Amino acid sequence: MSAAYARPLDLKRGRVDLSHGSGGRAMAQLIEELFARELANEYLAQGDDGARLAAATGRLVIATDAHVVTPLFFPGGDIGCLSVHGTINDLAVMGATPLYLAAAFILEEGFALAELARIVASMAAAARAAGVPVVTGDTKVVERGKADGVYITTTGVGALRPGINCSGSHARPGDAVLLSGPIGEHGMAIMSLRENLSFDAPIVSDTAPLHGVISALLDAVPGVHVMRDATRGGVATTLNEIARQSRVGIRIDERAIHVPGPVEAACELLGLDPLYVANEGKFVVVCAAADAAAALAALRAHPQGANATQIGVVDAEARFGVQMKTRFGGRRSVDWLSGEQLPRIC
Amino acid sequence: MSAAYARPLDLKRGRVDLSHGSGGRAMAQLIEELFARELANEYLAQGDDGARLAAATGRLVIATDAHVVTPLFFPGGDIGCLSVHGTINDLAVMGATPLYLAAAFILEEGFALAELARIVASMAAAARAAGVPVVTGDTKVVERGKADGVYITTTGVGALRPGINCSGSHARPGDAVLLSGPIGEHGMAIMSLRENLSFDAPIVSDTAPLHGVISALLDAVPGVHVMRDATRGGVATTLNEIARQSRVGIRIDERAIHVPGPVEAACELLGLDPLYVANEGKFVVVCAAADAAAALAALRAHPQGANATQIGVVDAEARFGVQMKTRFGGRRSVDWLSGEQLPRIC
Repeated sequence: MSAAYARPLDLKRGRVDLSHGSGGRAMAQLIEELFARELANEYLAQGDDGARLAAATGRLVIATDAHVVTPLFFPGGDIGCLSVHGTINDLAVMGATPLYLAAAFILEEGFALAELARIVASMAAAARAAGVPVVTGDTKVVERGKADGVYITTTGVGALRPGINCSGSHARPGDAVLLSGPIGEHGMAIMSLRENLSFDAPIVSDTAPLHGVISALLDAVPGVHVMRDATRGGVATTLNEIARQSRVGIRIDERAIHVPGPVEAACELLGLDPLYVANEGKFVVVCAAADAAAALAALRAHPQGANATQIGVVDAEARFGVQMKTRFGGRRSVDWLSGEQLPRIC
Repeated sequence: MSAAYARPLDLKRGRVDLSHGSGGRAMAQLIEELFARELANEYLAQGDDGARLAAATGRLVIATDAHVVTPLFFPGGDIGCLSVHGTINDLAVMGATPLYLAAAFILEEGFALAELARIVASMAAAARAAGVPVVTGDTKVVERGKADGVYITTTGVGALRPGINCSGSHARPGDAVLLSGPIGEHGMAIMSLRENLSFDAPIVSDTAPLHGVISALLDAVPGVHVMRDATRGGVATTLNEIARQSRVGIRIDERAIHVPGPVEAACELLGLDPLYVANEGKFVVVCAAADAAAALAALRAHPQGANATQIGVVDAEARFGVQMKTRFGGRRSVDWLSGEQLPRIC
């Protein structure tokens, strides 16, 4: 019984083939020489069908996200780090401390091992930087034309912070609505690339883990009512989700929402509304009006919330949904995203 | 702010389109009227980015599996129940009690909503039967030709049974090697369908949750050394994995391994070796020789282990790997699966 393979994986010119998903020797080699090498930690080293974790105390939170972003590499990141950040952020906005990630790869036959290695390295770097290890994984391979390079599903387990009780359903009339920073960067980084828009400086995705800034926020204001990251569907959809879950209205002020110049320019060119464009490092906070100043101060003291603003208030009038005072003083309804403004953005 | 949609989803003739993955209204409707309706439980009802779970005590186990089986429906099951069983079994063979599942769907544009509904219903039924709820999920949609109907990644969280310490690395020379039942049914159910083989009675997949029989086994023999479900790569690959992880050899007896007649016939027709064919409801057990009788009795007392047998013993001679005494009295080496015998079997 030897662990030796005929020759090492060719990480420069090699390509994924169906044998890498068969459960046999080629799969074992791919896992050892690529995945385990990059992601190495004590859990993966157990080598079983899953990972045994440390003893848990308190309530757990679990979140899962499939990532199908195209293109796989974009200014500011790639599907690897995005799949780490996305799931960490889903845990963090629920008030949980992210502890562990699981990652399942669906690879397309013919995909370059060099690209896969780059993606896994990015994933490993993001997991290390965030302090959240990838403890177990899975690899499947599908035939050419049955995927698009690679899809990555990450699932995260976190520990709910004691005393935190926030949910999309907890917004109350009179609450303040805060936004952690400028919007539209992730979506427009992707769209600019797809549409071949060129700017003097490319738009860079804001993909980032939010558990640090959220931890600082909760230290300052443990009674936050709602946190939600404004990903697919953008801030507009996130606000609509909150309004609907909490059965309230939300009034926002366009002037308080920061849209970076290049994002605005790209949106205008492509006929997109930045309010509906995905972010991967921004979140909405709803808290009691009396807590707003402390919450903003906590956010602004952290690099990931340096440009946080209050963008609106919660209203008892649920039937009006999300209403926005425009920068010209008008008023318009901000509806749910309908249709597929930006497919495969994450 | 209304929860009403223009019209209900057309679950008879409707198809998945890109808007169902956009994060907007169409996605909310798909989740409400299809996923949440079928899978309904208190956790999904939280409606947040993940699920808050009950307080945990003790050590956790996590396992993840992407499912890309083709065809999506096969005798004995479909990708829906398979994705529940597969992950439950990964937890169970680690000695954990499965508690929760997360499910992430990658849907292909144009996929029939009727098929999706059938798959989700099967998933829900399997989860209910196993007593393991799907507590959170995610839905992405990719363009036509970028997936194959639907891929489902499930991730499971379980509680490690106190006092259980089994791992692929714990096989010891002199141990008994047991197998919970006849082999090859899942893989040959799929292959027969793909190859249009017809038999008087079709081969039916053995897909099933194994946590019940494993719980009974561990009640009887808590000191089991290794358990592993013999999925991709079959019993041969599973034994090779154990031999390698434990740095031992394994000697098995072909006569003790039950291959059902139709599986054997189909394997002969297609030139496949049943030892390498995937199972989805069978597992290998390694335990001290002194425990073998009690372990076999516990397995046989359960419907999922009724035909359990001892198939071999663990040997100190790691360099010989897995050796099999054939039914004709010869001896042959049972190597790892190499190449892609059966792609997309799970």
